Amino acid sequence: MTGIAMPNPDPAIMARRDQIVAGLREIVKGEGVISSEDERRAFETDALTAYRRLPLAVVLPSTTEEVAEVLKFLDREGVPVIPRGAGTSLAGGALPQEDAVVVGVSKMARVLDVNLGDRTMRVQTGITNLGVSGAIAHEGFFYAPDPSSQLACTIAGNVAMNSGGAHCLKYGVTTNNLMGVTFVTMKGEIVEIGGDAMDAPGLDMLGVICGSEGQFGIVTEATLRILPMAEGARPILFGFPSSEAAGAATAAVLGAGIVPVAIEFMDKIAIDICEDFAHAGYPLDAGALLIVEVEGSPKEIDEQLARIGEIAGAHGATSSRQAKTPAEAAAIWKGRKSAFGAMGRISDYICMDGTIPTGRLPEVLKRITEIVEERGLRVANIFHAGDGNLHPLVLYDMNDPVSLAKAEEAGEEILKACVEVGGCLTGEHGVGIEKRELMTTQFTEAELFQQMRVKSAFDPNWLMNPAKVFPLALRGDARKRAA
Amino acid sequence: MTGIAMPNPDPAIMARRDQIVAGLREIVKGEGVISSEDERRAFETDALTAYRRLPLAVVLPSTTEEVAEVLKFLDREGVPVIPRGAGTSLAGGALPQEDAVVVGVSKMARVLDVNLGDRTMRVQTGITNLGVSGAIAHEGFFYAPDPSSQLACTIAGNVAMNSGGAHCLKYGVTTNNLMGVTFVTMKGEIVEIGGDAMDAPGLDMLGVICGSEGQFGIVTEATLRILPMAEGARPILFGFPSSEAAGAATAAVLGAGIVPVAIEFMDKIAIDICEDFAHAGYPLDAGALLIVEVEGSPKEIDEQLARIGEIAGAHGATSSRQAKTPAEAAAIWKGRKSAFGAMGRISDYICMDGTIPTGRLPEVLKRITEIVEERGLRVANIFHAGDGNLHPLVLYDMNDPVSLAKAEEAGEEILKACVEVGGCLTGEHGVGIEKRELMTTQFTEAELFQQMRVKSAFDPNWLMNPAKVFPLALRGDARKRAA
Repeated sequence: MTGIAMPNPDPAIMARRDQIVAGLREIVKGEGVISSEDERRAFETDALTAYRRLPLAVVLPSTTEEVAEVLKFLDREGVPVIPRGAGTSLAGGALPQEDAVVVGVSKMARVLDVNLGDRTMRVQTGITNLGVSGAIAHEGFFYAPDPSSQLACTIAGNVAMNSGGAHCLKYGVTTNNLMGVTFVTMKGEIVEIGGDAMDAPGLDMLGVICGSEGQFGIVTEATLRILPMAEGARPILFGFPSSEAAGAATAAVLGAGIVPVAIEFMDKIAIDICEDFAHAGYPLDAGALLIVEVEGSPKEIDEQLARIGEIAGAHGATSSRQAKTPAEAAAIWKGRKSAFGAMGRISDYICMDGTIPTGRLPEVLKRITEIVEERGLRVANIFHAGDGNLHPLVLYDMNDPVSLAKAEEAGEEILKACVEVGGCLTGEHGVGIEKRELMTTQFTEAELFQQMRVKSAFDPNWLMNPAKVFPLALRGDARKRAA
Repeated sequence: MTGIAMPNPDPAIMARRDQIVAGLREIVKGEGVISSEDERRAFETDALTAYRRLPLAVVLPSTTEEVAEVLKFLDREGVPVIPRGAGTSLAGGALPQEDAVVVGVSKMARVLDVNLGDRTMRVQTGITNLGVSGAIAHEGFFYAPDPSSQLACTIAGNVAMNSGGAHCLKYGVTTNNLMGVTFVTMKGEIVEIGGDAMDAPGLDMLGVICGSEGQFGIVTEATLRILPMAEGARPILFGFPSSEAAGAATAAVLGAGIVPVAIEFMDKIAIDICEDFAHAGYPLDAGALLIVEVEGSPKEIDEQLARIGEIAGAHGATSSRQAKTPAEAAAIWKGRKSAFGAMGRISDYICMDGTIPTGRLPEVLKRITEIVEERGLRVANIFHAGDGNLHPLVLYDMNDPVSLAKAEEAGEEILKACVEVGGCLTGEHGVGIEKRELMTTQFTEAELFQQMRVKSAFDPNWLMNPAKVFPLALRGDARKRAA
């Protein structure tokens, strides 16, 4: 992925920088336009930190109308736009380019309306994911998608990347919890899409906008589906002799018609590192563990956990431990939620994000180990097993370029293996720049051209986040074919 | 709506009819091409029977590849295509035009794969909605969306119209239960969209295809999300003194955080007619009734019904009756499911289909009565109250043109009233031709042009079901602006 090309900056745009900044300052007053190099540095990367590009300027509008004026101006000037939420993309989705203006939504973070009767909530999209649930917790409601970055990441970014999280097994990902958006096109048109109702006339453009990775326009407001909290929830921890046994138990639980809120998986390496960091009481003698969380009344929880326990036992679980107190439950989750950070203390890693049909878990886990060990590296597996969303962490040494190249090669092979069994290149992190060139392993040219025609229907001049998602080789002549 | 214009047939196409039929016969052999006038008559209308157009020809391919060859041929010939499932559209979505070829999927009705572990099922889209659930019932699974026409309607039609049903309050509509499709464009390209996984890289084109009313292409296969049946389910019947009281009770149940499987509403006229037909034991002294169904274990059902009973009582329910046996439950549902047929025995009617935020039910019900009575007509209300999907039946006399004109005028006013309170022109029946010219009451021109640009991205020459959905006045010059 270090080999991923970014387009060369357009010198004609670079030469007009002062004039473009002046034009932006006419629309957005005061500190809303950032042009000094020092301040722009804060926006040069996202959570795929290996890549950095200093943007031409950064603009942080305060209203939908300002966003529309900014985009209309940049469209007229032919300047590319990089939309930005909190910049937590793990796939380089928010990576700037030197001849582009970053348009951020961080100054638009208000709750506009809460309607418990209709179970909807209207927010400006600069609000954080956790901020949404925080605003309705006292009413006994919550917003279901819960990416690990939920403390920082914004609804704008969640919509752009169709974000998931540990609890989406039961409640779905962003697209399943999004009812409408206010959306600004590159031409500066303000378009209302969807709304409070379950269905709407005309085209349902909401789904194709959700997950369009900032390539269609900027979402400034969103109507979210909110849900009543369950009476209670309780995690249980199972140790298994092997990853294969834990994978088979996951498939069996789901096949039996039980829908836990979450089924999280860790292999031996992950267990050791997370236990050392979080002291969660993970079984150090196990080859793999599952955290299964169920919810409902105390009796419902007991019944579900009893059935899950039977299935786990039948698949060779060697230990099991229910959280008996809220503190124990929190400790179990702390280990999982801090896993990536804990891993970062002991090794550099690249985090992959593929999905597979859950029934194929055991064989894919075996294949991942083979792919990585063939290259003399190690892999830790920590992921959302319930919905087949894998996050293999391929460990490498950042100071050894050969080690990085091997890790990236292993990452690519892992994603191809996911596609081969009927899965996907990405579960919740998105394509961004990271998986752009791998899209041809998932889609035919006809399929990619159809997607590119839809992109063109929203952004005919390809000015919105243009370097992402679609393989560079399909641009140019091929883009004309697609348009 | 009798005033709705259809485009004049293109004489150049009409003159080439024999040649077009011959070309189709080279692709689809034997009885798969229907050209005699008698046989074509069976395809001249759908469930919006006031409108009829004899199609140029009808073709019923047997494979995805045949569909692709047929569309490629018709695209080359510049002949419009009318995709058809079972022709049960209530909005004229499957209405032919004289210069168009109907392409039906009825010969492609096989189950291709059932995967209980992943909870997915792959079908050819000519299978009926009930056929899907029938194929997995013995495993304890079902497919959730359940339109009233489920015995006849196809998955192809369900996908095209994003169909709902009585039970979608808990489980969502088609788009919430669709995971992937095989899709053929007008150019004859076969495109795989979505799949088994919760999210996929690239654009999520599934949502915009689901509900595109046959204007993008033809869906020949679908991967559906299937669900384990609940342990049990039980309906309860409440009589209320007025429609307003029943509407307020619905809003209160949902506001309390209870999610029944269904909340169905009938007003006084509907109760009388349905009871006379089905002998379901409906309360004849009530001004309105609600059927509320919940599911779970016997104990869960008892608990939920007790809470719902308290809320209904607080909102003035005058009677309540739980189904004590499966036969009683079936009788309660029989009355509701046969309501439209029972109504047809005593009066002609037009069935509207709007949605509103559930909190606005009482006031909108009042407004509907005013709108209809102002015109000297009667209205029966039978609908999915839980998700705010109204189906007011405006009663009129088919032999009196003045009465029909008044009914259609009332229908339009009712839909506008839905839009005014933040609802939609259509809940589950689609726009078709019926609501085409009303789309401007719901959307701005900028919004409609954005939708039309997306339509053009799939069907640049507007050959797929072209006369539907978008107001005719926006075509022509305006269409060029949109393209």
